[in-house]
Amino acid sequence: MPIQSAPNNRPLLPEPTLRRLPWYLAYVSMLKVQNVEYVSSTTISRKLNVDSSQIAKDLSFLNIKGKTRIGYDVATLERSLRDFLGFKTEHNAVIMGVGSLGSALIADSGLHRYGLNIVAGFDINPELGNVSSSGIPVYHPSELQERLMGLNAEIGIITVPAESAQDVADQLVHAGIRALWNFTPYRIRTEEGVVIANTSIYAHLAVMYNRLGMMNHNNDNG
Amino acid sequence: MPIQSAPNNRPLLPEPTLRRLPWYLAYVSMLKVQNVEYVSSTTISRKLNVDSSQIAKDLSFLNIKGKTRIGYDVATLERSLRDFLGFKTEHNAVIMGVGSLGSALIADSGLHRYGLNIVAGFDINPELGNVSSSGIPVYHPSELQERLMGLNAEIGIITVPAESAQDVADQLVHAGIRALWNFTPYRIRTEEGVVIANTSIYAHLAVMYNRLGMMNHNNDNG
Repeated sequence: MPIQSAPNNRPLLPEPTLRRLPWYLAYVSMLKVQNVEYVSSTTISRKLNVDSSQIAKDLSFLNIKGKTRIGYDVATLERSLRDFLGFKTEHNAVIMGVGSLGSALIADSGLHRYGLNIVAGFDINPELGNVSSSGIPVYHPSELQERLMGLNAEIGIITVPAESAQDVADQLVHAGIRALWNFTPYRIRTEEGVVIANTSIYAHLAVMYNRLGMMNHNNDNG
Repeated sequence: MPIQSAPNNRPLLPEPTLRRLPWYLAYVSMLKVQNVEYVSSTTISRKLNVDSSQIAKDLSFLNIKGKTRIGYDVATLERSLRDFLGFKTEHNAVIMGVGSLGSALIADSGLHRYGLNIVAGFDINPELGNVSSSGIPVYHPSELQERLMGLNAEIGIITVPAESAQDVADQLVHAGIRALWNFTPYRIRTEEGVVIANTSIYAHLAVMYNRLGMMNHNNDNG
Protein backbone atom coordinates (compact mmCIF):
# COMPACT_ATOMS: atom_id res chain seq x y z
CA MET A 1 0.00 0.00 0.00
CA PRO A 2 2.28 2.71 -1.26
CA ILE A 3 0.21 5.70 -0.17
CA GLN A 4 -0.28 4.54 3.38
CA SER A 5 3.36 3.73 3.81
CA ALA A 6 4.45 7.07 2.41
CA PRO A 7 5.04 8.78 5.77
CA ASN A 8 7.41 6.02 6.79
CA ASN A 9 9.22 5.89 3.50
CA ARG A 10 9.61 9.61 3.07
CA PRO A 11 9.90 11.42 6.37
CA LEU A 12 10.78 15.11 6.25
CA LEU A 13 14.50 14.69 6.69
CA PRO A 14 16.84 17.39 7.94
CA GLU A 15 18.37 19.05 4.88
CA PRO A 16 21.98 18.25 5.91
CA THR A 17 21.04 14.55 5.99
CA LEU A 18 19.39 14.82 2.58
CA ARG A 19 22.51 16.42 1.20
CA ARG A 20 24.77 13.69 2.60
CA LEU A 21 22.68 10.76 1.33
CA PRO A 22 23.73 11.35 -2.31
CA TRP A 23 27.38 11.24 -1.20
CA TYR A 24 26.80 7.81 0.32
CA LEU A 25 24.99 6.73 -2.83
CA ALA A 26 27.85 7.90 -5.06
CA TYR A 27 30.34 6.04 -2.90
CA VAL A 28 28.45 2.73 -2.67
CA SER A 29 27.65 2.89 -6.39
CA MET A 30 31.39 2.97 -6.98
CA LEU A 31 31.90 0.03 -4.61
CA LYS A 32 29.17 -1.90 -6.40
CA VAL A 33 30.95 -1.40 -9.74
CA GLN A 34 34.08 -2.72 -8.04
CA ASN A 35 32.12 -5.79 -6.83
CA VAL A 36 32.64 -4.94 -3.15
CA GLU A 37 30.00 -6.72 -1.06
CA TYR A 38 30.11 -5.03 2.34
CA VAL A 39 31.28 -1.67 3.64
CA SER A 40 31.66 -0.49 7.23
CA SER A 41 30.59 2.92 8.46
CA THR A 42 34.23 3.42 9.48
CA THR A 43 35.32 3.06 5.86
CA ILE A 44 32.56 5.35 4.59
CA SER A 45 33.52 7.80 7.32
CA ARG A 46 37.17 7.82 6.30
CA LYS A 47 36.40 8.15 2.60
CA LEU A 48 33.80 10.89 2.88
CA ASN A 49 35.05 12.69 5.98
CA VAL A 50 31.72 12.31 7.79
CA ASP A 51 31.58 11.15 11.40
CA SER A 52 30.63 7.45 11.50
CA SER A 53 27.94 8.00 14.15
CA GLN A 54 26.45 10.61 11.82
CA ILE A 55 26.41 8.07 9.00
CA ALA A 56 24.60 5.54 11.18
CA LYS A 57 22.09 8.21 12.18
CA ASP A 58 21.53 9.35 8.57
CA LEU A 59 20.98 5.78 7.37
CA SER A 60 18.62 4.99 10.25
CA PHE A 61 16.11 7.32 8.54
CA LEU A 62 15.97 4.67 5.80
CA ASN A 63 15.63 1.89 8.37
CA ILE A 64 19.02 0.60 7.31
CA LYS A 65 21.30 -0.87 9.91
CA GLY A 66 24.76 -2.29 9.39
CA LYS A 67 25.70 -5.73 10.72
CA THR A 68 28.26 -5.89 13.51
CA ARG A 69 31.77 -6.52 12.16
CA ILE A 70 30.49 -6.88 8.56
CA GLY A 71 28.96 -3.49 7.92
CA TYR A 72 26.41 -2.56 5.29
CA ASP A 73 25.45 -4.76 2.35
CA VAL A 74 26.58 -2.63 -0.62
CA ALA A 75 23.92 -3.72 -3.13
CA THR A 76 21.08 -3.27 -0.64
CA LEU A 77 22.38 0.08 0.51
CA GLU A 78 22.75 1.31 -3.07
CA ARG A 79 19.22 0.23 -3.97
CA SER A 80 17.67 1.67 -0.81
CA LEU A 81 19.41 5.02 -1.19
CA ARG A 82 18.49 5.37 -4.86
CA ASP A 83 14.90 4.48 -4.09
CA PHE A 84 14.64 6.63 -0.99
CA LEU A 85 16.09 9.67 -2.74
CA GLY A 86 13.42 9.45 -5.40
CA PHE A 87 15.90 8.77 -8.20
CA LYS A 88 14.00 5.69 -9.37
CA THR A 89 10.71 7.55 -9.79
CA GLU A 90 10.04 9.77 -12.80
CA HIS A 91 9.34 13.40 -11.95
CA ASN A 92 8.06 15.53 -14.80
CA ALA A 93 9.44 19.04 -15.13
CA VAL A 94 9.11 22.01 -17.45
CA ILE A 95 11.95 24.41 -18.08
CA MET A 96 11.55 28.17 -18.35
CA GLY A 97 14.22 29.71 -20.57
CA VAL A 98 15.76 27.60 -23.32
CA GLY A 99 18.96 29.62 -23.68
CA SER A 100 22.40 28.15 -23.26
CA LEU A 101 21.97 26.81 -19.70
CA GLY A 102 18.40 25.66 -20.34
CA SER A 103 19.39 23.76 -23.48
CA ALA A 104 22.32 22.32 -21.58
CA LEU A 105 20.09 20.92 -18.84
CA ILE A 106 17.66 19.51 -21.41
CA ALA A 107 20.61 17.74 -23.05
CA ASP A 108 22.04 16.38 -19.78
CA SER A 109 21.04 12.73 -19.70
CA GLY A 110 22.36 12.57 -16.13
CA LEU A 111 19.25 14.34 -14.90
CA HIS A 112 17.08 11.69 -16.47
CA ARG A 113 19.09 8.99 -14.73
CA TYR A 114 18.27 10.76 -11.46
CA GLY A 115 14.55 10.69 -12.12
CA LEU A 116 14.03 14.07 -13.76
CA ASN A 117 12.04 14.09 -16.96
CA ILE A 118 11.99 17.47 -18.73
CA VAL A 119 8.82 17.34 -20.83
CA ALA A 120 8.64 20.85 -22.29
CA GLY A 121 10.44 24.18 -22.49
CA PHE A 122 9.07 27.72 -22.58
CA ASP A 123 10.89 30.68 -24.09
CA ILE A 124 9.93 34.14 -25.31
CA ASN A 125 12.32 33.81 -28.24
CA PRO A 126 10.22 32.75 -31.23
CA GLU A 127 13.35 31.80 -33.16
CA LEU A 128 13.68 28.68 -31.05
CA GLY A 129 10.83 27.24 -33.07
CA ASN A 130 8.68 24.46 -31.70
CA VAL A 131 11.23 21.83 -30.82
CA SER A 132 14.51 22.05 -28.90
CA SER A 133 17.66 20.47 -30.26
CA SER A 134 17.01 17.56 -27.89
CA GLY A 135 13.53 16.99 -29.24
CA ILE A 136 11.29 18.37 -26.48
CA PRO A 137 8.63 20.88 -27.49
CA VAL A 138 9.27 24.58 -26.83
CA TYR A 139 6.27 26.90 -26.34
CA HIS A 140 5.76 30.58 -25.72
CA PRO A 141 5.37 31.36 -21.97
CA SER A 142 1.87 32.73 -22.64
CA GLU A 143 0.81 29.11 -23.29
CA LEU A 144 2.13 27.91 -19.90
CA GLN A 145 -1.16 27.38 -18.09
CA GLU A 146 -2.84 25.72 -21.07
CA ARG A 147 0.11 23.41 -21.88
CA LEU A 148 0.67 22.38 -18.26
CA MET A 149 -2.73 20.71 -18.17
CA GLY A 150 -1.57 17.88 -20.39
CA LEU A 151 1.98 17.57 -19.07
CA ASN A 152 1.58 16.25 -15.52
CA ALA A 153 4.60 18.31 -14.43
CA GLU A 154 5.26 19.14 -10.81
CA ILE A 155 8.65 20.86 -11.12
CA GLY A 156 9.53 24.14 -12.85
CA ILE A 157 13.18 24.73 -13.72
CA ILE A 158 14.12 28.40 -13.99
CA THR A 159 16.95 29.24 -16.39
CA VAL A 160 15.82 32.66 -17.58
CA PRO A 161 17.96 35.79 -17.05
CA ALA A 162 18.06 36.73 -13.36
CA GLU A 163 15.93 39.83 -13.86
CA SER A 164 13.00 37.69 -15.06
CA ALA A 165 13.33 34.95 -12.44
CA GLN A 166 10.71 36.29 -10.02
CA ASP A 167 8.13 36.90 -12.77
CA VAL A 168 8.61 33.41 -14.15
CA ALA A 169 8.40 31.88 -10.68
CA ASP A 170 5.11 33.68 -10.10
CA GLN A 171 3.76 32.39 -13.43
CA LEU A 172 4.75 28.82 -12.58
CA VAL A 173 3.16 28.91 -9.14
CA HIS A 174 0.04 30.55 -10.55
CA ALA A 175 -0.19 27.72 -13.08
CA GLY A 176 -0.03 25.12 -10.32
CA ILE A 177 3.65 24.12 -10.15
CA ARG A 178 4.65 23.19 -6.60
CA ALA A 179 8.44 23.01 -6.84
CA LEU A 180 10.84 25.53 -8.35
CA TRP A 181 14.43 24.71 -9.25
CA ASN A 182 16.12 28.08 -9.56
CA PHE A 183 19.42 28.27 -11.45
CA THR A 184 19.54 32.07 -11.47
CA PRO A 185 21.35 34.08 -8.82
CA TYR A 186 18.09 35.90 -8.12
CA ARG A 187 16.60 35.02 -4.76
CA ILE A 188 13.05 34.04 -5.63
CA ARG A 189 10.31 34.45 -3.04
CA THR A 190 7.01 32.66 -3.17
CA GLU A 191 4.04 31.53 -1.15
CA GLU A 192 4.30 28.95 1.59
CA GLY A 193 3.98 25.35 0.50
CA VAL A 194 6.04 25.80 -2.66
CA VAL A 195 9.40 24.04 -2.62
CA ILE A 196 12.36 26.12 -3.83
CA ALA A 197 15.74 24.57 -4.60
CA ASN A 198 18.53 26.98 -5.52
CA THR A 199 21.50 25.84 -7.58
CA SER A 200 23.63 28.94 -7.54
CA ILE A 201 26.26 28.08 -10.11
CA TYR A 202 27.58 31.62 -10.33
CA ALA A 203 27.72 32.02 -6.54
CA HIS A 204 29.94 28.93 -6.44
CA LEU A 205 32.17 30.58 -9.02
CA ALA A 206 32.43 33.70 -6.85
CA VAL A 207 33.47 31.65 -3.82
CA MET A 208 36.08 29.82 -5.89
CA TYR A 209 37.50 33.03 -7.42
CA ASN A 210 37.77 34.64 -4.00
CA ARG A 211 39.56 31.68 -2.45
CA LEU A 212 41.90 31.39 -5.44
CA GLY A 213 42.66 35.12 -5.31
CA MET A 214 43.56 34.85 -1.65
CA MET A 215 45.83 31.88 -2.30
CA ASN A 216 47.62 33.59 -5.18
CA HIS A 217 48.17 36.62 -3.00
CA ASN A 218 49.59 34.49 -0.19
CA ASN A 219 51.86 32.74 -2.67
CA ASP A 220 53.08 36.08 -4.03
CA ASN A 221 54.13 37.06 -0.55
CA GLY A 222 55.47 33.76 0.61
CA MET B 1 49.39 48.91 -8.10
CA PRO B 2 47.02 45.99 -8.37
CA ILE B 3 49.13 43.44 -6.51
CA GLN B 4 49.68 45.58 -3.46
CA SER B 5 46.04 46.46 -3.17
CA ALA B 6 44.96 42.83 -3.51
CA PRO B 7 44.55 42.19 0.23
CA ASN B 8 42.13 45.10 0.48
CA ASN B 9 40.23 44.23 -2.66
CA ARG B 10 39.93 40.54 -1.97
CA PRO B 11 39.82 39.73 1.72
CA LEU B 12 38.95 36.17 2.69
CA LEU B 13 35.26 36.69 3.14
CA PRO B 14 33.00 34.46 5.22
CA GLU B 15 31.37 32.02 2.79
CA PRO B 16 27.79 33.08 3.69
CA THR B 17 28.70 36.65 2.70
CA LEU B 18 30.23 35.43 -0.55
CA ARG B 19 27.05 33.53 -1.31
CA ARG B 20 24.84 36.53 -0.65
CA LEU B 21 26.85 39.00 -2.75
CA PRO B 22 25.68 37.41 -6.06
CA TRP B 23 22.07 37.84 -4.86
CA TYR B 24 22.68 41.56 -4.39
CA LEU B 25 24.36 41.70 -7.78
CA ALA B 26 21.43 39.96 -9.49
CA TYR B 27 19.00 42.35 -7.83
CA VAL B 28 20.86 45.59 -8.60
CA SER B 29 21.52 44.40 -12.17
CA MET B 30 17.77 44.15 -12.55
CA LEU B 31 17.32 47.65 -11.08
CA LYS B 32 19.95 48.99 -13.46
CA VAL B 33 18.04 47.57 -16.44
CA GLN B 34 14.97 49.33 -15.05
CA ASN B 35 16.94 52.62 -14.82
CA VAL B 36 16.55 52.82 -11.03
CA GLU B 37 19.25 55.13 -9.64
CA TYR B 38 19.28 54.46 -5.90
CA VAL B 39 18.20 51.60 -3.67
CA SER B 40 17.97 51.45 0.12
CA SER B 41 19.13 48.51 2.20
CA THR B 42 15.54 48.32 3.47
CA THR B 43 14.31 47.66 -0.06
CA ILE B 44 17.04 45.10 -0.76
CA SER B 45 16.21 43.51 2.58
CA ARG B 46 12.52 43.21 1.75
CA LYS B 47 13.16 41.85 -1.75
CA LEU B 48 15.79 39.28 -0.81
CA ASN B 49 14.67 38.44 2.71
CA VAL B 50 18.06 39.30 4.22
CA ASP B 51 18.32 41.44 7.36
CA SER B 52 19.24 45.02 6.39
CA SER B 53 22.02 45.24 8.98
CA GLN B 54 23.46 42.07 7.42
CA ILE B 55 23.37 43.72 4.00
CA ALA B 56 25.24 46.77 5.32
CA LYS B 57 27.80 44.48 6.93
CA ASP B 58 28.25 42.37 3.76
CA LEU B 59 28.71 45.45 1.59
CA SER B 60 31.16 47.03 4.03
CA PHE B 61 33.64 44.31 2.94
CA LEU B 62 33.64 46.09 -0.42
CA ASN B 63 34.06 49.48 1.26
CA ILE B 64 30.61 50.41 0.00
CA LYS B 65 28.41 52.57 2.17
CA GLY B 66 24.92 53.78 1.41
CA LYS B 67 24.00 57.45 1.76
CA THR B 68 21.54 58.38 4.48
CA ARG B 69 17.96 58.60 3.15
CA ILE B 70 19.11 57.95 -0.44
CA GLY B 71 20.67 54.51 -0.17
CA TYR B 72 23.15 52.89 -2.53
CA ASP B 73 23.96 54.16 -6.00
CA VAL B 74 22.73 51.31 -8.21
CA ALA B 75 25.29 51.63 -11.02
CA THR B 76 28.25 51.90 -8.63
CA LEU B 77 27.01 49.00 -6.52
CA GLU B 78 26.51 46.84 -9.60
CA ARG B 79 29.99 47.60 -10.92
CA SER B 80 31.69 47.11 -7.56
CA LEU B 81 29.96 43.79 -6.91
CA ARG B 82 30.75 42.41 -10.36
CA ASP B 83 34.36 43.49 -10.03
CA PHE B 84 34.77 42.28 -6.45
CA LEU B 85 33.27 38.87 -7.23
CA GLY B 86 35.85 38.33 -9.96
CA PHE B 87 33.25 38.18 -12.73
CA LYS B 88 35.07 40.81 -14.79
CA THR B 89 38.38 38.92 -14.79
CA GLU B 90 38.96 35.94 -17.09
CA HIS B 91 39.73 32.69 -15.27
CA ASN B 92 40.93 29.83 -17.46
CA ALA B 93 39.57 26.38 -16.74
CA VAL B 94 39.84 22.87 -18.13
CA ILE B 95 36.98 20.40 -17.97
CA MET B 96 37.39 16.71 -17.18
CA GLY B 97 34.66 14.63 -18.77
CA VAL B 98 33.03 15.88 -21.95
CA GLY B 99 29.82 13.87 -21.61
CA SER B 100 26.37 15.39 -21.49
CA LEU B 101 26.93 17.67 -18.48
CA GLY B 102 30.46 18.58 -19.54
CA SER B 103 29.35 19.53 -23.05
CA ALA B 104 26.49 21.44 -21.52
CA LEU B 105 28.80 23.56 -19.37
CA ILE B 106 31.13 24.18 -22.32
CA ALA B 107 28.12 25.43 -24.29
CA ASP B 108 26.80 27.66 -21.48
CA SER B 109 27.78 31.18 -22.47
CA GLY B 110 26.58 32.35 -19.04
CA LEU B 111 29.74 30.98 -17.48
CA HIS B 112 31.83 33.09 -19.81
CA ARG B 113 29.85 36.16 -18.82
CA TYR B 114 30.79 35.38 -15.22
CA GLY B 115 34.50 35.26 -16.01
CA LEU B 116 34.99 31.55 -16.67
CA ASN B 117 36.86 30.63 -19.80
CA ILE B 118 36.89 26.89 -20.54
CA VAL B 119 39.98 26.42 -22.70
CA ALA B 120 40.13 22.62 -23.12
CA GLY B 121 38.36 19.38 -22.32
CA PHE B 122 39.72 15.95 -21.46
CA ASP B 123 37.87 12.68 -22.00
CA ILE B 124 38.81 9.02 -22.23
CA ASN B 125 36.31 8.53 -25.05
CA PRO B 126 38.29 8.70 -28.30
CA GLU B 127 35.09 9.07 -30.31
CA LEU B 128 34.83 12.67 -29.13
CA GLY B 129 37.58 13.48 -31.58
CA ASN B 130 39.77 16.50 -31.13
CA VAL B 131 37.26 19.29 -30.90
CA SER B 132 34.03 19.64 -28.89
CA SER B 133 30.83 20.78 -30.55
CA SER B 134 31.54 24.23 -29.11
CA GLY B 135 34.96 24.39 -30.68
CA ILE B 136 37.30 23.84 -27.74
CA PRO B 137 39.97 21.14 -28.10
CA VAL B 138 39.35 17.76 -26.41
CA TYR B 139 42.37 15.65 -25.39
CA HIS B 140 42.95 12.30 -23.76
CA PRO B 141 43.47 12.61 -19.97
CA SER B 142 46.94 11.09 -20.36
CA GLU B 143 47.96 14.37 -22.03
CA LEU B 144 46.76 16.48 -19.08
CA GLN B 145 50.09 17.49 -17.60
CA GLU B 146 51.67 18.24 -20.97
CA ARG B 147 48.69 20.24 -22.30
CA LEU B 148 48.25 22.25 -19.11
CA MET B 149 51.64 23.86 -19.59
CA GLY B 150 50.39 25.96 -22.48
CA LEU B 151 46.90 26.63 -21.19
CA ASN B 152 47.40 28.91 -18.17
CA ALA B 153 44.41 27.25 -16.44
CA GLU B 154 43.87 27.49 -12.70
CA ILE B 155 40.49 25.76 -12.41
CA GLY B 156 39.58 22.12 -13.11
CA ILE B 157 35.91 21.33 -13.65
CA ILE B 158 34.98 17.73 -12.85
CA THR B 159 32.07 16.27 -14.79
CA VAL B 160 33.17 12.63 -15.03
CA PRO B 161 31.07 9.78 -13.56
CA ALA B 162 31.10 9.92 -9.75
CA GLU B 163 33.24 6.79 -9.45
CA SER B 164 36.11 8.51 -11.30
CA ALA B 165 35.85 11.87 -9.53
CA GLN B 166 38.56 11.25 -6.94
CA ASP B 167 41.05 9.90 -9.49
CA VAL B 168 40.50 12.85 -11.78
CA ALA B 169 40.83 15.30 -8.89
CA ASP B 170 44.15 13.71 -7.94
CA GLN B 171 45.38 14.00 -11.54
CA LEU B 172 44.40 17.67 -11.71
CA VAL B 173 46.10 18.55 -8.43
CA HIS B 174 49.17 16.57 -9.44
CA ALA B 175 49.31 18.56 -12.67
CA GLY B 176 49.22 21.83 -10.73
CA ILE B 177 45.55 22.86 -10.74
CA ARG B 178 44.67 24.77 -7.52
CA ALA B 179 40.87 24.89 -7.71
CA LEU B 180 38.43 22.06 -8.36
CA TRP B 181 34.83 22.61 -9.32
CA ASN B 182 33.13 19.30 -8.61
CA PHE B 183 29.77 18.59 -10.25
CA THR B 184 29.66 14.93 -9.20
CA PRO B 185 27.95 13.74 -6.03
CA TYR B 186 31.25 12.17 -4.96
CA ARG B 187 32.86 13.96 -2.06
CA ILE B 188 36.36 14.65 -3.27
CA ARG B 189 39.19 14.99 -0.77
CA THR B 190 42.47 16.66 -1.51
CA GLU B 191 45.50 18.29 0.00
CA GLU B 192 45.34 21.55 1.92
CA GLY B 193 45.59 24.70 -0.16
CA VAL B 194 43.43 23.38 -2.98
CA VAL B 195 40.06 25.09 -3.33
CA ILE B 196 37.07 22.77 -3.81
CA ALA B 197 33.67 24.05 -4.87
CA ASN B 198 30.86 21.49 -4.97
CA THR B 199 27.81 22.01 -7.14
CA SER B 200 25.68 19.08 -6.16
CA ILE B 201 22.99 19.18 -8.78
CA TYR B 202 21.65 15.73 -7.94
CA ALA B 203 21.65 16.41 -4.20
CA HIS B 204 19.42 19.41 -4.87
CA LEU B 205 17.11 17.11 -6.82
CA ALA B 206 16.95 14.75 -3.84
CA VAL B 207 16.00 17.55 -1.47
CA MET B 208 13.32 18.75 -3.87
CA TYR B 209 11.83 15.27 -4.39
CA ASN B 210 11.71 14.69 -0.64
CA ARG B 211 9.97 18.00 0.07
CA LEU B 212 7.52 17.42 -2.79
CA GLY B 213 6.77 13.89 -1.57
CA MET B 214 5.98 15.21 1.89
CA MET B 215 3.69 17.88 0.51
CA ASN B 216 1.81 15.46 -1.70
CA HIS B 217 1.33 13.22 1.28
CA ASN B 218 0.02 16.10 3.42
CA ASN B 219 -2.34 17.11 0.62
CA ASP B 220 -3.65 13.55 0.32
CA ASN B 221 -4.55 13.65 3.99
CA GLY B 222 -5.80 17.19 4.14
